Amino acid sequence: MAEVHAARRSRLREGRAAAGRSAVLVSRPANLRYLTGSAPQHAVLLLGPAEDVLFCSQPPSGDPVEGRIGEDLRVQTLDDTGADPALAAASLAAASGAESLALEEHHLTVARHRAIGSAAPRLRLTDLGFAVEQQRLIKDEEEIACLRIAAEIADQALGELLESILVGRTERHLALELERRLVDHGADGPAFPTSVATGPNAGAAGHLPTDRRVEEGDFLSVCLGANYRGYRCELGRTFVIGTSPASWQVDLYDLVFAAQRAGREALAPGAAHREVDRAVRQILDSAGYGDRLGPSTGHGVGLEIGEDPQLSPSAMGKLDACVPVTVVPGVHLPGRGGVRIDDTLVVRSEADGGPELLTITTKELLAL
Amino acid sequence: MAEVHAARRSRLREGRAAAGRSAVLVSRPANLRYLTGSAPQHAVLLLGPAEDVLFCSQPPSGDPVEGRIGEDLRVQTLDDTGADPALAAASLAAASGAESLALEEHHLTVARHRAIGSAAPRLRLTDLGFAVEQQRLIKDEEEIACLRIAAEIADQALGELLESILVGRTERHLALELERRLVDHGADGPAFPTSVATGPNAGAAGHLPTDRRVEEGDFLSVCLGANYRGYRCELGRTFVIGTSPASWQVDLYDLVFAAQRAGREALAPGAAHREVDRAVRQILDSAGYGDRLGPSTGHGVGLEIGEDPQLSPSAMGKLDACVPVTVVPGVHLPGRGGVRIDDTLVVRSEADGGPELLTITTKELLAL
Repeated sequence: MAEVHAARRSRLREGRAAAGRSAVLVSRPANLRYLTGSAPQHAVLLLGPAEDVLFCSQPPSGDPVEGRIGEDLRVQTLDDTGADPALAAASLAAASGAESLALEEHHLTVARHRAIGSAAPRLRLTDLGFAVEQQRLIKDEEEIACLRIAAEIADQALGELLESILVGRTERHLALELERRLVDHGADGPAFPTSVATGPNAGAAGHLPTDRRVEEGDFLSVCLGANYRGYRCELGRTFVIGTSPASWQVDLYDLVFAAQRAGREALAPGAAHREVDRAVRQILDSAGYGDRLGPSTGHGVGLEIGEDPQLSPSAMGKLDACVPVTVVPGVHLPGRGGVRIDDTLVVRSEADGGPELLTITTKELLAL
Repeated sequence: MAEVHAARRSRLREGRAAAGRSAVLVSRPANLRYLTGSAPQHAVLLLGPAEDVLFCSQPPSGDPVEGRIGEDLRVQTLDDTGADPALAAASLAAASGAESLALEEHHLTVARHRAIGSAAPRLRLTDLGFAVEQQRLIKDEEEIACLRIAAEIADQALGELLESILVGRTERHLALELERRLVDHGADGPAFPTSVATGPNAGAAGHLPTDRRVEEGDFLSVCLGANYRGYRCELGRTFVIGTSPASWQVDLYDLVFAAQRAGREALAPGAAHREVDRAVRQILDSAGYGDRLGPSTGHGVGLEIGEDPQLSPSAMGKLDACVPVTVVPGVHLPGRGGVRIDDTLVVRSEADGGPELLTITTKELLAL
């Protein structure tokens, strides 16, 4: 694995070959993990003129980490506890002859940026921008394998829940049980706080579980994901509770399902992000629910949930092969509830079989 | 409750009376919650020359929030989805005649700060610093009541776990069960990721649960906390598994217990933060374990876990009455395990009965 990370650091460096004697300081945790395989709290990575160094403050376990990760990465734990590792990294960059230091201005706070400037006054501070995030967009097969396992875990956890009795249980309890099952099946933890929404709450994006209990006739919508080795998937389904759904429930479900399918079918290398969004949105628009949609109808997943690309009306750019995304339309009717359906897929060319569906739980409207 | 938050905003404004026609932009979530009672994602609070406004992007439920919280706070949800509410807030501040805008430079990123400057080029941007955090240090009785309930919930969750069979269960499962019990007893969720550490892992600060199973003869250390209405407590205990602890276990436990007691007894209004730390540290130092201690031996709690004050050798400042803190020494011996004991207390004067212990689970060395 250390080779994979060294290769990613080389690629980042090559992309900046024009930047001269410039060192790079990476601070955003997901970017650190991508480039080194680990992201201790407050750690930073220096890609220096002379060497690559991961600077950590007190590591979580309390044991000093000192040494190397692979051949090309030195690890340095700071002795002066409480100090910001970014300052030590900037000092080393200056001492190693770097003229400038490219920083993640979208992650560093104003106060921290100023402290770095003071610690190494002769370094010119520049903006690295989203260079690492850009590099993270297209996943390698090892990353996709992790996402595939994460999705399988989420499918298993949800499948088991559906076999149990749901009526009378609270949203909070169902969410906690799902998270326990994710861990049972090998997840490092949930990918994000599990959402369970019943009755009038169903279908609301990002609903946080309450003490409301599942009742006969409810819509029940669930959104969960597993974190497997840092990689996060997303799976959302909506069910009805009781023997037979009401006709408004069937109609709303069919509509959201049709919109979600249109989004999935629009996924292809070269498809514009906004075209995928439009495929979903126009179906809901024409049924009069366009204003019920959130700002995006899907997003990238990987080391972060909700990473780029964003599938939204204002998004620029086109999809590439091996980019995993979610397609997640939802309609929530205040006071009545609603429907969300959420899959994680990997964009693949038609020759490779088209979009690869990672979350395979059925999307039939189940009456539980 | 709206009156409480309005009074806090007035106090913040009074503390800045010398700042002239200056508006204030609060972005740090815990500070937002303190000043408004809620903290939707990406929201910011503007204390303007004319009025106070909470700017939100899409609220979590998907329903537009528009209106007022109490008499003195207007809520504005942005229609142009995806836009940063901080930019709208800065524009309104400029339009309302503010000459400068004080920002939280320790929270805003460099990129976001620059965008605010572009959105309102005539505003002078200044640093609010830790003004809100300072105001949050001393808690009112309503806040302490929330912490007291949070501690009671953690005590109950831990007490129930101790009645169950532990041998053979994994750290992960025990941690998940504790978190479920926290919610059962009324917590909004865990205050932080629950730590369960067995055998060689026991006593390590911030240990993340693994698949290691509890064995006879193990030390078992647990650190958990409840989040109750946003307020977070911390409770840590160490146990031995089996009928009789080894003598090294008893000795280490007694030592850490003595250090923790010394810290608790040093808590008083007017006591220097570093003196409390020293009381703990010198007992472990004299036994040769000083280098096993982390950078701090306790910290403030409230809307955040680990907020100020920090009880550490380099800390400046003195304790006040009604400041809740943890006292949490630990010693971890690599390969063998260790002991951590962690209480949440509120600093009180001797006339008021001395430090108020919120986490009342026994600190006897229990053999389970």
